[in-house]
Amino acid sequence: MPQPIEFYFDFSSPYGYMASTQIDPLAEKYGRTVTWKPFLLGAVFKISGSKPLVDLPMKGDYFLRDFQRSAAYYGVPFKLPPGFPFAPIAASRAFYWLTDRDPELAKRLAKIVYHAGLGIGRDVASIDVIAELAAPLGIKADELRAAVNDQAVKDRLRAEVDAAVARNVFGSPFIFVDGEPFWGADRLPQVEKWLKTGGW
Amino acid sequence: MPQPIEFYFDFSSPYGYMASTQIDPLAEKYGRTVTWKPFLLGAVFKISGSKPLVDLPMKGDYFLRDFQRSAAYYGVPFKLPPGFPFAPIAASRAFYWLTDRDPELAKRLAKIVYHAGLGIGRDVASIDVIAELAAPLGIKADELRAAVNDQAVKDRLRAEVDAAVARNVFGSPFIFVDGEPFWGADRLPQVEKWLKTGGW
Repeated sequence: MPQPIEFYFDFSSPYGYMASTQIDPLAEKYGRTVTWKPFLLGAVFKISGSKPLVDLPMKGDYFLRDFQRSAAYYGVPFKLPPGFPFAPIAASRAFYWLTDRDPELAKRLAKIVYHAGLGIGRDVASIDVIAELAAPLGIKADELRAAVNDQAVKDRLRAEVDAAVARNVFGSPFIFVDGEPFWGADRLPQVEKWLKTGGW
Repeated sequence: MPQPIEFYFDFSSPYGYMASTQIDPLAEKYGRTVTWKPFLLGAVFKISGSKPLVDLPMKGDYFLRDFQRSAAYYGVPFKLPPGFPFAPIAASRAFYWLTDRDPELAKRLAKIVYHAGLGIGRDVASIDVIAELAAPLGIKADELRAAVNDQAVKDRLRAEVDAAVARNVFGSPFIFVDGEPFWGADRLPQVEKWLKTGGW
């Protein structure tokens, strides 16, 4: 049984969103599963000294254009929410709370949050919106709310972020295939070739 | 007659080198030509505040690995020279001096320099090496040497770099197709789709 592919992403990352629409079907094509691992780019940027793409000198306008163009290239809807980049903490905590009970359900919630936040441009920073998006999955709002404020869940997310930093996960998406690191949605063709050939 | 594709690159840029091996055949497939435009990333970094990839916190080791893996993905030889990243000024000046007399010859020289510098890891920073590499093309060493020290040629390169900066060419390679900007060798699939469809 091969190792699952590890898919690191930040809920506020456009290229993470785009890759999230591709990674599971790609893995399935090669008989692989995917473990989704949200992390916080903001915490990484404190170490790397980097910034959100749209805030980088000379680069902001390019990325706004490339987001739209790349989303169309992948054939997925795309719209930035008003508060972009937004805080992915509530969504990330909700994810880890849920994934310990049901990884597939957590992945479904992640897809719904990504679609809401970056597919149709809704503000998904607050726990209220996450709870609303989770309700159709049978997740009770009061339980979700309690989980997001639970110190154990906060610690769980923090530990995941620390682990990501320790592996030099410096951007989103960041994908490991059998330990081999790939940064960016634009590395998906190399990920596919790696899955097909076992590396080169 | 469609506009030429504009291909901006820095002679010390690994991804610029990789894209340089792909862009002409890709353009030809769609009946297009390519204008090559070397520029100086160092000058751009003074404005953008960025640095060479291998000097970025958390990212250096990843890029050293990705250079090798990406070169193999494109099927081209790759080796970093001892002084990487190196000064691309002599090669860039030689290019602009030559391109005003014979653009195709200048492109041939550029390909030879890229292969020497990043394909087999030779130090190509000095005018002596550029002159040696240019000799088989029938370019006289003393003429090349004079050109690289000619104020008019220096000014020509400076003007090209200023023009690149004015267009927000913040990285290498940077490709314009009918004015549409694409950054990175990893945007070549989008460049191809753009050439095929006329945009989306």
